[in-house]
Amino acid sequence: MKLMIPGPVTTRAEVRAALAHDFAPWDRDFYPLYASVRERLLPLAGVSGETHASLPLQGSGHFAIEAAIRTFVPRGGKLLVPMTGSYANRLTRLARECGRAVVSLPVGEGERADPRAVAAALAADPAIGHLAFVYSETSSGVVHDAAALAAAAGAAGRRVIIDAVSAFGALPLDLSAMPEVDAVLFTANKCLESVPGLAFAIAPKERLIARAGQAESWCLDLADVHSHAERVGAGSFRFTPPAQVLNALSVALALLEAEGGPPGRLARYRANLRAFYDGVLAIGLTPCLPRAVQGPIVMNVLAPDDPRWDLQAFVDLLKMRGFLISNFYDTPLPSFRVGLIGALGPEDYRAAVAAMDEALAGLGIRKRKAA
Amino acid sequence: MKLMIPGPVTTRAEVRAALAHDFAPWDRDFYPLYASVRERLLPLAGVSGETHASLPLQGSGHFAIEAAIRTFVPRGGKLLVPMTGSYANRLTRLARECGRAVVSLPVGEGERADPRAVAAALAADPAIGHLAFVYSETSSGVVHDAAALAAAAGAAGRRVIIDAVSAFGALPLDLSAMPEVDAVLFTANKCLESVPGLAFAIAPKERLIARAGQAESWCLDLADVHSHAERVGAGSFRFTPPAQVLNALSVALALLEAEGGPPGRLARYRANLRAFYDGVLAIGLTPCLPRAVQGPIVMNVLAPDDPRWDLQAFVDLLKMRGFLISNFYDTPLPSFRVGLIGALGPEDYRAAVAAMDEALAGLGIRKRKAA
Repeated sequence: MKLMIPGPVTTRAEVRAALAHDFAPWDRDFYPLYASVRERLLPLAGVSGETHASLPLQGSGHFAIEAAIRTFVPRGGKLLVPMTGSYANRLTRLARECGRAVVSLPVGEGERADPRAVAAALAADPAIGHLAFVYSETSSGVVHDAAALAAAAGAAGRRVIIDAVSAFGALPLDLSAMPEVDAVLFTANKCLESVPGLAFAIAPKERLIARAGQAESWCLDLADVHSHAERVGAGSFRFTPPAQVLNALSVALALLEAEGGPPGRLARYRANLRAFYDGVLAIGLTPCLPRAVQGPIVMNVLAPDDPRWDLQAFVDLLKMRGFLISNFYDTPLPSFRVGLIGALGPEDYRAAVAAMDEALAGLGIRKRKAA
Repeated sequence: MKLMIPGPVTTRAEVRAALAHDFAPWDRDFYPLYASVRERLLPLAGVSGETHASLPLQGSGHFAIEAAIRTFVPRGGKLLVPMTGSYANRLTRLARECGRAVVSLPVGEGERADPRAVAAALAADPAIGHLAFVYSETSSGVVHDAAALAAAAGAAGRRVIIDAVSAFGALPLDLSAMPEVDAVLFTANKCLESVPGLAFAIAPKERLIARAGQAESWCLDLADVHSHAERVGAGSFRFTPPAQVLNALSVALALLEAEGGPPGRLARYRANLRAFYDGVLAIGLTPCLPRAVQGPIVMNVLAPDDPRWDLQAFVDLLKMRGFLISNFYDTPLPSFRVGLIGALGPEDYRAAVAAMDEALAGLGIRKRKAA
């Protein structure tokens, strides 16, 4: 079964094979694995261990995002969040439930967040200490201009938190040129193409030290993860880690390195997008976004305007043909969602388009002409 | 390699084999797996879905403990914690960092927490709303009388939180007779004999509903996990789960059921303890605890009183022989720690004792007579 969802993604067999071992996470043989994964993540964000730390956290991406908010934004502090879609809504809820205030910045449907609007909103409210945004918005498929958004906040003297969950490992990220960034959050199971169970933050060491003891949560305190990880000779997880999941990520990172790092991976995802976008048009369906703003991570296709359309039936027909796509709606107009990431290539997307054509026929839907 | 640590434990090959699949966690085929694991955990605590919910949480046991404290103890609320060892210290830190007050109840070294002392401490401080304790204390190896401790709190009109991380699945637990219990916390990777990455709470449904919206953390809110899990037709995780880890647990639960449930598993762990305790005495070493209080989960053995003793060297010599034990001290007197749980039987412990005898000889240590 090929998972064509925006994560957890299809993984390669050698990644899953790395799950088949038991580990004692405080064994001397485990420390080098932990240290190696942490070290190899940093260059993917354009930094080194001189200035930044990469911090693994058990759990899902949401845990890392809440941890970053708790660690870097004081209780009662204020964040500006561009409302780019579902994951911006989730970021907002994570912040509000832990007692931080959120100022929402409207963003037009299918548009990129505007750095000038960010600058204006920050100028209008000096109490906003942080900009927090979603780099690649899974609900819409839009990739936002992380560097320009962060720069707008930096120019206004504010700090930045980036939800890069569905971006990290493929989309460009150079924290060495983004001194205003407090944290970038991501997981193992999106563009890094490993299995779920681990989330990560990359953050400046001096900020982690400065914010020690502020999180009001031992579990979700990145400063404490950092101080524990840095213990001489025995840095490791604070609590029992998903050790098998870490080992799989180590293999997945080797595959990413062999593919030429994020630029190589991005090239493949772009090829996936081209194959799928072209194919969708060729069978008479309509992508939700124009090519100019359609990102290479996830793509939504408008549901056919036909009474016989049934998303779950369509998903089931595709599944019989070996492709699994999302089975729920997450856009203003009904659409079906297809992930472009994971251990898949353009040939898989051409095959998926052919399967979609058959599935539409199976539903008795006459194809429309491309828009 | 046989892991003889108190978790993550040695797993059976069929458990690890269940990790080798990719899952779409919002696929219709995944829901039954989620529902099945939740349902099969409840009878292990003596309850059913009529009254109680089992709630999976991504991450480690600490996450579930903090979540239970946040969910059931109001901010500023007070917990009584019997100071039974390292894990009671951790419980205390988890509570204090999220703004709950802890009253410490001293417990003698190598002794069980005394229900009468609990009753007296609760009588002395009406502001204490909860008793929170560790059922099986990993640092000492002492198993406490969970039913009697909970009953003492219940008789005083207080609520109870039980850290059953290293107990659940083997030690007796009948929540149907413990109406004062708000939550029991545990993980997949101890007596359930699966791999790490998932923690769980079992809690009364009416209490979960009553405490909605109090956790001050979306990630660590058990009431929200519950309301999401109960959604008709599509109950699942709130955030990306470690899907492979859940599938492994499903296989591990089938193995537990085949072993006769917790009583069958406990009988094997007790046989492991007998084999190891007898063997340790036979090679002239001294267990830290008398048999009467030594629990069947983890056992500490006094380090030989010999200048040539070196814990890491001893661990390394055992590892060469296929046995991995803990490589750090966690008791007042130096001792080495051996887990009695996981997919191991008495024959493994007899073999481990023989390996220890060789390792001591390798260190040049003359064996002492048994105490």
